[in-house]
Amino acid sequence: MADEQEAALKEQLAEAGARLVSQKSLIRQLKADGAPGEQVAAEVNKMKEVQAEVDALQAQISGPVFDRDGFDDVILRRMIVVPSFEIHGGTSGFFDYGPVGCALKDNIVNEWKKHFVLRERMLQLEGTCLTSEPVLKTSGHVDRFVDLMVKDDATGVCYRADKMLEDHIENLISADPGMDKEKKEELELIYRQADAYSPDELHELISERFKIVAPDTGNPLSKPFPFNLMFQTTIGPEGHNRGFLRPETAQGIFVNFKRLLEYNNGRTPFASAQVGLGFRNEINPRNGLLRVREFCMAEIEHFVHPDEKDHPRFHEVEDVVLTLFPQDNQLTTGRLVEMTAGKAVADGVINNQTLAYFMVRTHLFMKKIGIDLKKLRFRQHLKTEMAHYACDCWDAEIKLSYGWTECVGHADRACYDLKVHSEATKVDLRASRPLDPPQNVEYAKVEANKKIMGKEFKRDSPAIIAYIGETLPVDEACAIGEKLAAGEKVDVEVDGKTFTLTSEMMKVSRATKTVHEERFFCSVIEPSFGIGRLVHSVLEHTFDMRGEELVKEKGKVDRTLFKFPPVVAPIKCAVLPLLRKEPQEKLAETITETLVDAGVYATCDTSGTLIGRKYARMDEIGVPFAITVDVQTLEDGSVTLRERDSQEQVRIPEVDRAVSTVTALCSSRLEWAKVVEEYGLLSSA
Amino acid sequence: MADEQEAALKEQLAEAGARLVSQKSLIRQLKADGAPGEQVAAEVNKMKEVQAEVDALQAQISGPVFDRDGFDDVILRRMIVVPSFEIHGGTSGFFDYGPVGCALKDNIVNEWKKHFVLRERMLQLEGTCLTSEPVLKTSGHVDRFVDLMVKDDATGVCYRADKMLEDHIENLISADPGMDKEKKEELELIYRQADAYSPDELHELISERFKIVAPDTGNPLSKPFPFNLMFQTTIGPEGHNRGFLRPETAQGIFVNFKRLLEYNNGRTPFASAQVGLGFRNEINPRNGLLRVREFCMAEIEHFVHPDEKDHPRFHEVEDVVLTLFPQDNQLTTGRLVEMTAGKAVADGVINNQTLAYFMVRTHLFMKKIGIDLKKLRFRQHLKTEMAHYACDCWDAEIKLSYGWTECVGHADRACYDLKVHSEATKVDLRASRPLDPPQNVEYAKVEANKKIMGKEFKRDSPAIIAYIGETLPVDEACAIGEKLAAGEKVDVEVDGKTFTLTSEMMKVSRATKTVHEERFFCSVIEPSFGIGRLVHSVLEHTFDMRGEELVKEKGKVDRTLFKFPPVVAPIKCAVLPLLRKEPQEKLAETITETLVDAGVYATCDTSGTLIGRKYARMDEIGVPFAITVDVQTLEDGSVTLRERDSQEQVRIPEVDRAVSTVTALCSSRLEWAKVVEEYGLLSSA
Repeated sequence: MADEQEAALKEQLAEAGARLVSQKSLIRQLKADGAPGEQVAAEVNKMKEVQAEVDALQAQISGPVFDRDGFDDVILRRMIVVPSFEIHGGTSGFFDYGPVGCALKDNIVNEWKKHFVLRERMLQLEGTCLTSEPVLKTSGHVDRFVDLMVKDDATGVCYRADKMLEDHIENLISADPGMDKEKKEELELIYRQADAYSPDELHELISERFKIVAPDTGNPLSKPFPFNLMFQTTIGPEGHNRGFLRPETAQGIFVNFKRLLEYNNGRTPFASAQVGLGFRNEINPRNGLLRVREFCMAEIEHFVHPDEKDHPRFHEVEDVVLTLFPQDNQLTTGRLVEMTAGKAVADGVINNQTLAYFMVRTHLFMKKIGIDLKKLRFRQHLKTEMAHYACDCWDAEIKLSYGWTECVGHADRACYDLKVHSEATKVDLRASRPLDPPQNVEYAKVEANKKIMGKEFKRDSPAIIAYIGETLPVDEACAIGEKLAAGEKVDVEVDGKTFTLTSEMMKVSRATKTVHEERFFCSVIEPSFGIGRLVHSVLEHTFDMRGEELVKEKGKVDRTLFKFPPVVAPIKCAVLPLLRKEPQEKLAETITETLVDAGVYATCDTSGTLIGRKYARMDEIGVPFAITVDVQTLEDGSVTLRERDSQEQVRIPEVDRAVSTVTALCSSRLEWAKVVEEYGLLSSA
Repeated sequence: MADEQEAALKEQLAEAGARLVSQKSLIRQLKADGAPGEQVAAEVNKMKEVQAEVDALQAQISGPVFDRDGFDDVILRRMIVVPSFEIHGGTSGFFDYGPVGCALKDNIVNEWKKHFVLRERMLQLEGTCLTSEPVLKTSGHVDRFVDLMVKDDATGVCYRADKMLEDHIENLISADPGMDKEKKEELELIYRQADAYSPDELHELISERFKIVAPDTGNPLSKPFPFNLMFQTTIGPEGHNRGFLRPETAQGIFVNFKRLLEYNNGRTPFASAQVGLGFRNEINPRNGLLRVREFCMAEIEHFVHPDEKDHPRFHEVEDVVLTLFPQDNQLTTGRLVEMTAGKAVADGVINNQTLAYFMVRTHLFMKKIGIDLKKLRFRQHLKTEMAHYACDCWDAEIKLSYGWTECVGHADRACYDLKVHSEATKVDLRASRPLDPPQNVEYAKVEANKKIMGKEFKRDSPAIIAYIGETLPVDEACAIGEKLAAGEKVDVEVDGKTFTLTSEMMKVSRATKTVHEERFFCSVIEPSFGIGRLVHSVLEHTFDMRGEELVKEKGKVDRTLFKFPPVVAPIKCAVLPLLRKEPQEKLAETITETLVDAGVYATCDTSGTLIGRKYARMDEIGVPFAITVDVQTLEDGSVTLRERDSQEQVRIPEVDRAVSTVTALCSSRLEWAKVVEEYGLLSSA
């Protein structure tokens, strides 16, 4: 769209928006004054007209509005995703996948395993969901895995504090389309930082500046306070041992690092991957699959030497263009940047090759499963968002009807996790690499009088010697040695206890030794995928309607379709008898079995419905291909094959060739265009 | 083995067993008397000799003793299955799958989905693990999902009561190989019924008859009492809602029945399947993957009309011979029976065709994944074991080094589950089928004076009318009608309240109407697979050693192998450069990538190890095929291909043909014998 045209539309939108606001305020006033129902209804009708005008202008600027009602209707009616325990009243934040959703999810997970685990030969792992307390205490989750919560002072109902702020700002902006540019930018900045504020900052914003109240009651809200998001239980019949449902799968990999490294013959870099469930006791679950309490994740932990984050395959992907949203732009212009992965690393926008490599691999994966790449961006974490130990983080965000949504995290977690588990368990979680050539290094040589020390310090004696000789920097250790040699007493603190050393206990001197290997804590680069969010995103991005004229016509939901790429399509092929006659039905069943035996998920519709309705039913759940059995099939063995998106049909002379064609189309070894070329188009049905 | 030969061996065994018992008692006596260490040690050595004699005789009778130490060593050392949170001290009952175990499990699950879900076009579902209380209250789990537990009176440590009894009996029998036949049979009967006793019966056996004490301390044990095995937590920030980790996946299907039926266009029979995690807070987890607290299950709920349990595909499987262990035999001879599925149904051994059909499908699945069918039996539940509502249950049990182990349950649960959820939620979970021809049925026609009833009973009035007209049997309703007509007052109880009816309130008369459809609660046939147990079983049954002479030689664990069928083998093909030279290594890497791109999980070993050692390493984790790159490969492009079980090798003239050969072998489209036929055997390496 030309810039001037867009500017003109935006001006019209601002004007219509202003009318909408005043109309809404008029209605509020009428209601407050107790005006008669008919009068209110008339003004509401006017308001709806203005709303339609605003929607139409918005659609012209940013494309058609997503038909959420139509979408939700199909999702529920075709049992793609449904609320859990629905007949028992349901519980928010829990969803079940029906046959179509389940197969879609399975296909996405299998494609993920091929794209990442198999292709990159990662070490797959499957840990347990229930996790014993020491693991999550060590990782910091027991103390710090919290969201800030505010409570309705009167009713006790809880809300997530940052979301209250975000919702409020969203309402402010949408209620005032003509808002002053500077003011809007300031609000958007607050919105983007909402989950990075401290409790005090949030309190100031919520209660002082915006005076936000409880949405259901209008009551005042408490100060924000932390709520731990982990589900807790006890393990064993005696009831002493606390356990938690894991909030991420990553810790299961970290605690297995030593065995994984051994499995890999001691070599780094390597990656381990895990697909499994995570659990978070969300304060306010919402937006369907986007914020739930139990979810499937797929995580990769790539272990590298901290000084060697180049990736051997980076040259394969360096020319791929990514849409980036770097820190600086978030805090200033709000603009996205298109840039090759190579340039992003060279310019220091992305911290290192390995991180950028995985971002490109994610980008390619998104394309494979049907995400619209125009609605994909990589947003860098703000400094205030990142954990203190992290080097750099980029979220792959997908634009959905709910707004930009984080679906994949890419974090350089440095060596934090391995270090804390190593310290807590006293298990050495360092890797090593040969030094070639070997290096001469200085060290503090400790000559201890073990008899005297043993007498004085008992079993602590070895730890003290190790502390001086290994833990302390060489200079500090030698300084202690000098003091001792000068006859001074020196206090050292080891494992929280203080010990007093004297000259007769040890001599410490500077020395050199030849070292053949280096021992180090690996840095961890972590791509972490929310599978449920990807399932939702694929559903939204592939959701479509037949014919422009139907877009505005509500209720015509039976003409919707999902344009799933064949590789993730839940059902690959429908086999449809044209008429409800036994020979046709029987043949259709046989063809279905042949497809199934060839590993293609096929279904057969032998109901008495008309063929057009059968196609519509299959489109509705995104079946990419349909074989139709008709009178001619019984005569000469030929069948028609239909493609979902184009609705084009060809006639294939033999059933076997139709089956092998569908098999090839589903494994992406064959393009539909080639099929049309070979058999010629049938006139559209 | 000839019967006489076996009898002779058994006699020798009994004699050696008796010597073992008296030797053990001698040692106990010496210890009690405080005999010198050397004397005790000498007698212990003698005891070990006798033990070896007993083991050897047992091996001759029942095959070689399974080398548990060697097995456990490989499982842990090659990171196939490892204890969870090991570096943090571990928690019993939790295990992680490493790369090999994970791929094995994935392959078994994928094969399961192909064999059951895809082949039988089942409706797959994925529910949540966290389940809200009303669901499990309704299913009966909150009140009755318990194991009987006994407590060490002094220390408070808990034990599972039935297992205490089983262990005690096992010890009694193994300590006395010469035990009187009748006495042994009686003990075995108690053993088999251990988990079916009531708390009082168990108490009598544990404390009175066998005087069993706490194994760790020798303290007396409490009376058995129930312990609920579900892990409990709370959902939501306010903390009011109890939630549980599901103990089975089945309930997730039952609560979705209405939507599933709609998805299936209202037609029955149909099956729904779910693969997912289950959780049980086991009192004493043990035996590795066999009794754990978090496990993967795969469950099928097949919904049928209660009077139509014939299966349309039964003719395909009726000639398959199953090894059955029916109720009667368990209580009498203890003998297994070989019988075709057809005869078992015809003779009433198995209750119905659908149940038998699934048992055969399970039998065929076991064969596919590598279970030794000689170690598979179907054990019928005793009447005392079965839930009161169940019609018939058969466990597929696999013989493992721990004994016969239930791995798959096949239960006819009747209509219990759908009925209780329907009653609790007031949601109609009945299916319907057309009646052809329509039927005339009698019904109780109620002519109510709604005005009078409404005045008297208010909002209860419709429920009373429905009770008389629909809930009560026609005869009873008409009897009430007659009493009312005769001027009597009649008390009826509806929803727990009593109402008094009079003649002016209603007339009830016998009438007929034409009914076009029948509404009914489906019966549920449930095959339920423990995936972790199957993984363990496949590992045990495919575990083998190279060369008879090595079987007794401990420590030679590097010569072990897993004979996984290619379809479940975690890694399908190894690519091995013969020498550590760059052109060979590079080519090996390229071949590996080609295999991976063709979807074959391949690995490449470029370490400096000798080729024989490389083969042994790959055998150890069950890699069925290996391609070796050598000097000749660089000259003429040919490679050798080795098969794991036979250790046979062929030379294939082109890399591409080797890749397509391996691909075909792995998808079972090609047999190794054919490959040998085509290319000819190389002399063994």
